[in-house]
Amino acid sequence: MQKVLDVMTKIGHLDERAMQTAQARQDTLTKPAGSLGRLEELSVRVAGITGNPLPKIVYKVILTMAADHGVVAEGVSAYPQKVTSQMVYNFLRGGAAINVLARHVGARVVVVDMGVAADLEPHPALVDKKIAYGTQNMATGPAMTREEAIRALEAGIEIVEEQLARGMDILATGDMGIGNTTPSSAIVAAITGRPAAEVTGRGTGIDDTQLKKKIAIIEQVLEVNRPDPEDPLDVLAKVGGLEIGGLTGAILAGAAHRIPVVIDGFISGAAAVLAIKLCPKVQDFLIASHCSVEIGHQIVLQHVGLKPLMNMDLRLGEGTGAALGIGIVEASLKILAEMTTFAEAGVAEKKGEADASRSAAHR
Amino acid sequence: MQKVLDVMTKIGHLDERAMQTAQARQDTLTKPAGSLGRLEELSVRVAGITGNPLPKIVYKVILTMAADHGVVAEGVSAYPQKVTSQMVYNFLRGGAAINVLARHVGARVVVVDMGVAADLEPHPALVDKKIAYGTQNMATGPAMTREEAIRALEAGIEIVEEQLARGMDILATGDMGIGNTTPSSAIVAAITGRPAAEVTGRGTGIDDTQLKKKIAIIEQVLEVNRPDPEDPLDVLAKVGGLEIGGLTGAILAGAAHRIPVVIDGFISGAAAVLAIKLCPKVQDFLIASHCSVEIGHQIVLQHVGLKPLMNMDLRLGEGTGAALGIGIVEASLKILAEMTTFAEAGVAEKKGEADASRSAAHR
Repeated sequence: MQKVLDVMTKIGHLDERAMQTAQARQDTLTKPAGSLGRLEELSVRVAGITGNPLPKIVYKVILTMAADHGVVAEGVSAYPQKVTSQMVYNFLRGGAAINVLARHVGARVVVVDMGVAADLEPHPALVDKKIAYGTQNMATGPAMTREEAIRALEAGIEIVEEQLARGMDILATGDMGIGNTTPSSAIVAAITGRPAAEVTGRGTGIDDTQLKKKIAIIEQVLEVNRPDPEDPLDVLAKVGGLEIGGLTGAILAGAAHRIPVVIDGFISGAAAVLAIKLCPKVQDFLIASHCSVEIGHQIVLQHVGLKPLMNMDLRLGEGTGAALGIGIVEASLKILAEMTTFAEAGVAEKKGEADASRSAAHR
Repeated sequence: MQKVLDVMTKIGHLDERAMQTAQARQDTLTKPAGSLGRLEELSVRVAGITGNPLPKIVYKVILTMAADHGVVAEGVSAYPQKVTSQMVYNFLRGGAAINVLARHVGARVVVVDMGVAADLEPHPALVDKKIAYGTQNMATGPAMTREEAIRALEAGIEIVEEQLARGMDILATGDMGIGNTTPSSAIVAAITGRPAAEVTGRGTGIDDTQLKKKIAIIEQVLEVNRPDPEDPLDVLAKVGGLEIGGLTGAILAGAAHRIPVVIDGFISGAAAVLAIKLCPKVQDFLIASHCSVEIGHQIVLQHVGLKPLMNMDLRLGEGTGAALGIGIVEASLKILAEMTTFAEAGVAEKKGEADASRSAAHR
């Protein structure tokens, strides 16, 4: 647990000075002040996150963490469990959606075995942090021990520190785990206090009958385990998942190292809920890429106070929405760095503001 | 007018067969069917637009059309008119927001003088289609003659055909013109019948008093000119703008040549309203990139039946939102082309569907 506490202690505040400098530069660029909306906000926030008033993104990392879930024994998913490991191999061969979108934005995908229920063949691009062969069936008892939950957080922290050594200017979260919308819904219900029905969706595509059953299972999971909403580690251990724990640790570590963390969909969102509950300052370091079709995701975004950049009706996970988000964050930083100023371009400013702004520029 | 009629005659329907083939491929890719939401829809629609079940985007064009507006004499803008020509030079030097975002997505910016109120110095990247030195002040009479409106449409068509010859797989619309939210609001009010107050926003950033005045001016513009809502050319001539006419022509030509047309914000949206009124089939060929802060844009999107991809609070124009949209469309086509299928990857399909889908794949 010391590693987790150390990382949380390191999490600071946004660098106000870097943000002011970035904002001042935005206001001199050849466009009406504020007219690039969230692109301007993003660039200023990344300045605050990194402490660099003119931040650059060179190395982009998408962490796709995989694990299995004992609760699939209850029939909560449309897919068989073996798909988790099959998809891990698909990631390693570069054929999955996340590989395509990572190539599109120039990011590297780091695939992590946090707890797949199979022995995976070693591969240079696979990080082995396996804590167990999947979680236990949380419909009848805790998903994992508290020690396993801590080890999952620590593994996420270790991965971020390993990737930092290879170069990482932005981090995106992603997940793979058949059944993992079920622990995500349980986590969100436990922490926010919302009823299971309001935070439970169709995952990979179950029908109405299966959805009713899934909601009933989540109610049972919460009833059997009674996770303490004020103790995020208890929530993670009792009703969480190993990849969700890994992502929670990675989010904490990203924030501690002042790396912008782009959050994907519902599963990553559940990890963000846990991370913010552990350390509220984390919120400043997060960027919500999209709002998923999975109904609980809206509640997550409201709860953590993040506004998504896109509404693409995605519900795949893997980090796919976050990958697109990286492209938008990068665009925002290029705007800040590459646009010319009014003065450089010889373009007139807004009526009545030119003099004020010009004298500000000469200060 | 013959050129406009010819182009409208050429506009066809989406290629259903290409769409079916693209959709069938989407359904075999290693993800739950439909889980990439609008990325899947986009790829299928571009298949229908181009008639190619596996469309590729190599050449990307952003048309940034510039013109001036006589109505600025009424004080409707926060910026002086000379900014239009100054920004054209900024585009040509590569220092504006649209240049930065075009480079980000690998697009070329085609800057067009449709009617800037100054003689611009020739530049290899500037297309001269100047029809007039800005429009007349439409607060006291028509913005342009019907002949000028037709020439504006024709110029837009010519530019698309010239750019096609250089290679163009996707077209994005953009605008520059101090004062051009005023004709855009007038067009949208005229065609949709909505009151001026509901479709008029702050443009580059006017205050409450100026906004009230702008609304009153637009009411006066509509009262003085009484454009016929059933005659889009009458609307364009009386209350439009030269760059809006050029964009309308370009949208028609893009659709006629089966090129996906990515629509930017409110000014481009007004052009899309006119194009669809001229030829409703155009709608199928359009992709709305974002929803602008400018309040009339939501009404435009509802009216034309397009759902934006992003909510970035942009209000700059130039094609900036459309540039980001190009990146997302390209991502959608890479998903279609580059992901592996369940069969190739050896990944199990959804319970109960594997056999049906496998036999479909072997058909």
